[in-house]
Amino acid sequence: MKKNSPLYGVKPQVLNVPAYTLRAYEAEVKLNQNENPYDFPDDLKGEIFRRFRGRQWSRYPDFIPDSLRLQLAEFAGWEKDGVLVGNGSNELLQATLMVLIKSRTRVAIPAPTFTVYRLISNVLGAKIVDVPLNPDMSYDVDALISKSQEAGAGVLIINTPNNPTGAVLRGEGLQRILEQFSGHVLLDEAYYEFWGQTGLEFLKEYPRLIITRTFSKAMGMAGLRVGYLLAHPDLAAQISKAKLPYNVNQFSLTAAEVALENIGRFRAAIEAVMKERERLGGELGRMPGIKVYPSEANFFLIEVPVEPRAIFEDLYGQGILIRDVSSYPSLSKCLRVSVGAPDENNRLLSALRAALNARAMKA
Amino acid sequence: MKKNSPLYGVKPQVLNVPAYTLRAYEAEVKLNQNENPYDFPDDLKGEIFRRFRGRQWSRYPDFIPDSLRLQLAEFAGWEKDGVLVGNGSNELLQATLMVLIKSRTRVAIPAPTFTVYRLISNVLGAKIVDVPLNPDMSYDVDALISKSQEAGAGVLIINTPNNPTGAVLRGEGLQRILEQFSGHVLLDEAYYEFWGQTGLEFLKEYPRLIITRTFSKAMGMAGLRVGYLLAHPDLAAQISKAKLPYNVNQFSLTAAEVALENIGRFRAAIEAVMKERERLGGELGRMPGIKVYPSEANFFLIEVPVEPRAIFEDLYGQGILIRDVSSYPSLSKCLRVSVGAPDENNRLLSALRAALNARAMKA
Repeated sequence: MKKNSPLYGVKPQVLNVPAYTLRAYEAEVKLNQNENPYDFPDDLKGEIFRRFRGRQWSRYPDFIPDSLRLQLAEFAGWEKDGVLVGNGSNELLQATLMVLIKSRTRVAIPAPTFTVYRLISNVLGAKIVDVPLNPDMSYDVDALISKSQEAGAGVLIINTPNNPTGAVLRGEGLQRILEQFSGHVLLDEAYYEFWGQTGLEFLKEYPRLIITRTFSKAMGMAGLRVGYLLAHPDLAAQISKAKLPYNVNQFSLTAAEVALENIGRFRAAIEAVMKERERLGGELGRMPGIKVYPSEANFFLIEVPVEPRAIFEDLYGQGILIRDVSSYPSLSKCLRVSVGAPDENNRLLSALRAALNARAMKA
Repeated sequence: MKKNSPLYGVKPQVLNVPAYTLRAYEAEVKLNQNENPYDFPDDLKGEIFRRFRGRQWSRYPDFIPDSLRLQLAEFAGWEKDGVLVGNGSNELLQATLMVLIKSRTRVAIPAPTFTVYRLISNVLGAKIVDVPLNPDMSYDVDALISKSQEAGAGVLIINTPNNPTGAVLRGEGLQRILEQFSGHVLLDEAYYEFWGQTGLEFLKEYPRLIITRTFSKAMGMAGLRVGYLLAHPDLAAQISKAKLPYNVNQFSLTAAEVALENIGRFRAAIEAVMKERERLGGELGRMPGIKVYPSEANFFLIEVPVEPRAIFEDLYGQGILIRDVSSYPSLSKCLRVSVGAPDENNRLLSALRAALNARAMKA
């Protein structure tokens, strides 16, 4: 590369990594990002505006959002000094990896899982150790332990429920990993409210466990970017060094406070999504040729009997946007659909039936 | 360190770096963070609420905020593909350093300057090359070039106007650096609106220049965390890989759009600050024993004839919060005061006079 090129000096692992991109599709029914179909309650929006309008926007947010950390500590059942607040949980994942990944640190990552783990780890210079899931898309706990240990991994990242498969790592599996793997375990619980279980109970005994969560999904705040991390206070203090000052804007901090004060208000939406998950999963499972993987999250991974891209495009033509995950490892026949509101799921079901019939008639 | 310690495996450079902390002081007159004393216009706040309330908060922000990038490109006079939007300009600085810093990359940083450059670089494993300023706190262009070149630095970071000194790097100095230094030059223009000059004109000819700016200062949006970066489009595409998806929340994106649509509205506040800077600088300069460094920003570095901490505490006792920068390299006798509104500056001036008189009488 020429020395006066703007890219001279850019790290090779950055140049080589593909960008995480998402084409901007518009659609009437949006089932592609595992968003909550029920919006943040309108009266709470008003309360946030009321509190925020009176503040001076020209002032920085609190250096450390201590009142929110305390609220989160009480809500989660953990100590305040072990709680960090981030600009989405992704920022906290990134900060955690920044303090743990040295040049060529091994990072064990199940495959398939959320793409961003690999992206961040690559940019930071890690060597990725892929740990395939079982053929039924469940976690292979033995493989997670043995592959991580054999590679001398410093970090193992686990998403539970896992995006895009919906599978979970249960308590006994997590405990086995924590007993037998000697590195840090980064447990991303972005979807845990739709499952109802958490690894938090293990945090006291296994201080190399780090848990991240988000307000994006269950609390309907994807647009506001608020996540939090639960860890041993000593470790949280180190991770905090890689978090930029004032990393969460004051509007989102205010929104998170109001959400926590009214946490009961989000229960109905979570339960509605879980109920629709039951119904949608059943209906999808009865469609000829469709295989539905069991999911504890607010989405389903489905295997389709024809080219997934063709189904994706067909649905898109009918105003329904889902996620084509066929480029993920082991998912060449798969698509991911978020659980929407009942009418959205109905539209998905009939559009999918029509798409499959049309393909079957062509064949 | 014991293997089951939560800190086992944390990078030594993280453990060794002190955290960037700021004690939470409350005060009536806040002149410690170089904030804009004039708040974001209230009617524009209302317009932002109006636009944002109608949006679904449960939806992610745009993957790439293209309309805002286009607005910024037109506003700044640069190409859209060379514009990135960040969660404050610090996030863009961090992303830039993440793609440029390999283990032991040399990063040249003037001393004293904004602390966060060193913090991020350290966490990323860089070796810092300190380049002292001239004794009058102006930039030593020859030293910036020679020290960076001799160390084989990959990156040189320059803040202009410089926090906490107020000094600027003029066009001819910047051009000399760009001609003679072979690494990337990261130019942080957080305060450029108070100076009125920019290095942007050099971006076309020198594609290793990267410029960051912020809405925090001149636009009175410190609470909302919006920054932007201007660079060669090829380099911006690489930096973008280290930026997390959905890194700016939708509320702040909406606020930035409204601010740019009404950019003329911020002119009066900028001019009022510049006028007050003139007056405050003159008054401070006439105080016996005080040395004021020339500033093109919205703050002054002052050297005081007594222990700076004592003055800081005295002022704080009078309800005025300033910044004690006496722990910065070469600034052991110094304090930093932001330019506030006229009444705030008057309170600062009389409190400072009283503090100095009290000390003089004790001595």
